Amino acid sequence: MNLDTLRFVLYEVLEGDTLNQYERFADYDRDSVDILIDSVKAFADKELYPYFKEMDEKPAHFADGGVLVHPQIEKIIAKGAELGLIGSGFEYELGGMQLPMLYNYALVHILDCANNHATGYGGLTTGAANLIRVYGSDELKEKYIPKMIAGEWGGTMALTEPNAGSSLSDLTTEAIPQDDGTYKISGQKIFISGGDHQFCDNFIHLTLARIKGAPAGTKGISLFVVPKNRIKEDGSLESNDVITAADFPKMGQKGYCTTHLVYGENENCQGWLVGQPNQGLKYMFRMMNEARISVGCAAASMATAAYYASLQYAKERPQGRKINNEGVKDVSSDPVLIIEHPDVRRMLLLQKSVVEGSLALILEASKLSDLHTVAEGEASEQAHLLLELLTPIVKSYPSEMGKVSIDNGLQILGGYGFTEDFILQQYYRDIRITSIYEGTTGIQALDLLGRKVPMHNGAAMQLFAQEVSKTIEIAKTLELQKSATELAQRMQQVAETTEKLLRYAGAGQYDHFLADATVYLEFFSTFVIGWQWLKMASTAKQALLSGEGSFGTDFYESKIHTMRFYFKYELSKMTSLAEVLIDEQSLTVDTFKEEVLG
Amino acid sequence: MNLDTLRFVLYEVLEGDTLNQYERFADYDRDSVDILIDSVKAFADKELYPYFKEMDEKPAHFADGGVLVHPQIEKIIAKGAELGLIGSGFEYELGGMQLPMLYNYALVHILDCANNHATGYGGLTTGAANLIRVYGSDELKEKYIPKMIAGEWGGTMALTEPNAGSSLSDLTTEAIPQDDGTYKISGQKIFISGGDHQFCDNFIHLTLARIKGAPAGTKGISLFVVPKNRIKEDGSLESNDVITAADFPKMGQKGYCTTHLVYGENENCQGWLVGQPNQGLKYMFRMMNEARISVGCAAASMATAAYYASLQYAKERPQGRKINNEGVKDVSSDPVLIIEHPDVRRMLLLQKSVVEGSLALILEASKLSDLHTVAEGEASEQAHLLLELLTPIVKSYPSEMGKVSIDNGLQILGGYGFTEDFILQQYYRDIRITSIYEGTTGIQALDLLGRKVPMHNGAAMQLFAQEVSKTIEIAKTLELQKSATELAQRMQQVAETTEKLLRYAGAGQYDHFLADATVYLEFFSTFVIGWQWLKMASTAKQALLSGEGSFGTDFYESKIHTMRFYFKYELSKMTSLAEVLIDEQSLTVDTFKEEVLG
Repeated sequence: MNLDTLRFVLYEVLEGDTLNQYERFADYDRDSVDILIDSVKAFADKELYPYFKEMDEKPAHFADGGVLVHPQIEKIIAKGAELGLIGSGFEYELGGMQLPMLYNYALVHILDCANNHATGYGGLTTGAANLIRVYGSDELKEKYIPKMIAGEWGGTMALTEPNAGSSLSDLTTEAIPQDDGTYKISGQKIFISGGDHQFCDNFIHLTLARIKGAPAGTKGISLFVVPKNRIKEDGSLESNDVITAADFPKMGQKGYCTTHLVYGENENCQGWLVGQPNQGLKYMFRMMNEARISVGCAAASMATAAYYASLQYAKERPQGRKINNEGVKDVSSDPVLIIEHPDVRRMLLLQKSVVEGSLALILEASKLSDLHTVAEGEASEQAHLLLELLTPIVKSYPSEMGKVSIDNGLQILGGYGFTEDFILQQYYRDIRITSIYEGTTGIQALDLLGRKVPMHNGAAMQLFAQEVSKTIEIAKTLELQKSATELAQRMQQVAETTEKLLRYAGAGQYDHFLADATVYLEFFSTFVIGWQWLKMASTAKQALLSGEGSFGTDFYESKIHTMRFYFKYELSKMTSLAEVLIDEQSLTVDTFKEEVLG
Repeated sequence: MNLDTLRFVLYEVLEGDTLNQYERFADYDRDSVDILIDSVKAFADKELYPYFKEMDEKPAHFADGGVLVHPQIEKIIAKGAELGLIGSGFEYELGGMQLPMLYNYALVHILDCANNHATGYGGLTTGAANLIRVYGSDELKEKYIPKMIAGEWGGTMALTEPNAGSSLSDLTTEAIPQDDGTYKISGQKIFISGGDHQFCDNFIHLTLARIKGAPAGTKGISLFVVPKNRIKEDGSLESNDVITAADFPKMGQKGYCTTHLVYGENENCQGWLVGQPNQGLKYMFRMMNEARISVGCAAASMATAAYYASLQYAKERPQGRKINNEGVKDVSSDPVLIIEHPDVRRMLLLQKSVVEGSLALILEASKLSDLHTVAEGEASEQAHLLLELLTPIVKSYPSEMGKVSIDNGLQILGGYGFTEDFILQQYYRDIRITSIYEGTTGIQALDLLGRKVPMHNGAAMQLFAQEVSKTIEIAKTLELQKSATELAQRMQQVAETTEKLLRYAGAGQYDHFLADATVYLEFFSTFVIGWQWLKMASTAKQALLSGEGSFGTDFYESKIHTMRFYFKYELSKMTSLAEVLIDEQSLTVDTFKEEVLG
């Protein structure tokens, strides 16, 4: 990874310093953040990266009724907690650091680049603790948050069931009210990341379940704290009848366990309601923005690490020769480094444009989350609205295009890329989960087109268009007119295409409206990253013109060059995607016969 | 896989029956081919597929100076040889079956669908034996071909060296002439597929090496037969000093060994020249068409198998509900099978359009190879010219888009797709090698744009355009006017874009000419598969109109539907790719500074 690029986005593009005008974040100026970044980088280099390959080779696995993970996980959790990384955004009085999300995700990016198998343990514990922090009673907060923040107890978010994956409305885990105010829980959860291992005394499962008699569908889902072990009056632990039935062996991210939990097999599983009954999904989804930023961040980070691994190879590997003006290669000359070949440069620039564009978007979203928290009135609402719109892209673009990016990185290594001697193949396998968990790409697409685009009469889209226009206006003043004009034309294309699709919804043709939501997501995401690149290029240009930036001329010019690359090779995809979206043939909806397949 | 689709392409689209007008192929009418197909399908079902997952779980590996592969490989080689599958196209007098390539690849497709880890052993033995058949002396033929065809001895094509992967001109394996007419060989070869295992007595390495004093570059490369063991006068074997130094552990296709060979460590490695000195690369590349069809076939087959695995899941897995005309889901209704969801149908149709389009192209290329062999005069030359042009696409399209296809198949399974309990993740890993070996996609792209497009003053392109025009004219007579017109417009786009690029070559700007060769390959390939789909749809339409086809109405309509899908969702990509190709900004060539990266 590249700390300069990270700092460029944090301090120059996003002007992170503006956050410390808010009392909550008053302690975070550039100097204090730099210290944090350096200490987390040192931690990542020393304790995370050296174990990255080993975690793949010695996967988390089920044994004797529990899950065994790599021994280094113990140290990573302990040291991570010591650095304050679990619940870093929590209030001081809860043991947190009141760290802005902007910087939190900068740190998570550093950790994810070093070892994406390890970061989820702390990340999900933070997410689970955060649900208790925001919606839980004081009793729950006192009981659980300190131990979770200290890394002694793990936390999970337990949504998925064997028959309810993307379709949460069908979940059947049951909660029966008891006289003492608790609930008796029974059911099964699968794919629970970080759900069990040998290094925490307890796991606090933030579990979605249906209170007996509750309405069908998503309206009857409640949220419970269900610990693996109950806390007795004397503080000691006793089993709460949450059995770890299995750990799923996976293609990648093998160091990060994926458990199958069975609740109440012996009718002795107790749960504590969080907040109000039947509001569980709403609570969970308020946290979902954060979880989805985390997945986007993990994906962008894997792709970043893969990019630098392939770049290093390209700078060291001699192979082939340049073509001369007669179209031939002079074999009497020495072979050149493969970074000299235009096709290799294309693959490198593709990666760079994807990973830096992703990082910028993730940090932008994180800052919006901060503004939603600390700003007031309209400013807070607008930040939230924009964050809601961007979240499906923050989650899915780094996952989908990160996959393509790593694919290009692997290709640069040729045959070596496919061997286990080189690390590219591990990133290639690891990143594949990010398009799936915390809502598949298809789910993100439905969220974007079906909910976020139309919500509040298109208010988020209008706000987004205004933000883009600001970027375009600035770029126009900076000798970036051509790119600014191109982005403006693309914005027009987004508007027209969206309007055309919304007409189907207006006509009650919801099937048709949403049939190509995934294509729309790709179309829109490609634009959003183009917007991020124009922002970055403008910031770079400003620094070049003013001479006041923190980085060198080459650094800033590289951002402008990469923006041009993205516009030429990636933004151009929008033309074809728009063709697909406005084509009125309906090939997957009403005219569809199943016999078409097979 | 779907035998109906295979037969449809063989008999109806490509009119395979026309081949048995040639004496060499006189024995192969539809009935005899059907028997072959059925027996190979039975072999694949019984002896290959049941071991597919196991070969991944128990990879080929290096032990005690040799490579150990899965025990079932022994039976597969023996039974495959018994069925006549090794060297099936060879003359009867050499022990072959004189089987047309068209049918050979139909059979290989069946085997590859069942188990892509196993087929290469026989496939490469065929390739190696074929080099001896075409270019070797009678002595070499008699000595090696019978044992190779019988599956007793394996064969390899040994090109790659540690410092000469894509750049064969740098290979350094040395051959020193000896008084007895043989050569003393020394050097190293890596990534040699099928290079050693416990089930063959001998391995015949068709090895590229440089005779001492030969010119530098590709002009000084000769081809040698270098057996692992020399044959003594009494027919027994003695070591020929070819040491297996390692087997590369890989991300996928783990059952297929990938060896590192060291020749002449003890100065006792003997080689026999094949054909004339310094002609080795030319010989090897005459065979390369075949090897590249094999890779395309393997890739298309993996993607085919993955498609049917995801289709089966989609037909069995209930999840979610359809959206009604108010845009809501009725949670009181039962969940639907996921095949009901438009996004899942889109992912299935994408796969179908890619895998069947690939198969059609592979078989078309195979038939061209047959016509080159048996036709006379211009017909033979034209077949060869077209085959040369199409080969880079036959190799790379199934590899690149097969990867995307399998990615979509995996996605259909959601979280399960990422687990080792389901087979999709194995296909996902396996197919990744196909974009690399036998010439990476970047190499295919240079071959297409740098050699094949300009060769003989564009003769192959002209011929190709004529073929496409024939398809378009037929489609126009069959109520497929709209698609026919679209393909004609796309052909125009190909012509204009190609002409624009060739202008760079004309101006001596070869760097610029070839910088985006990979983009051009994708652009051109997308068109070629569109052509294949229009051919298939026309054949289907003809059958529907005449009522004389061998298959049902649903079957034929599915081909037309899939063509429409391909045109809408895939062929449309050409618009954006053309935008990239005609954009004159040069971002990876002359203006490039290395500081742009990092």
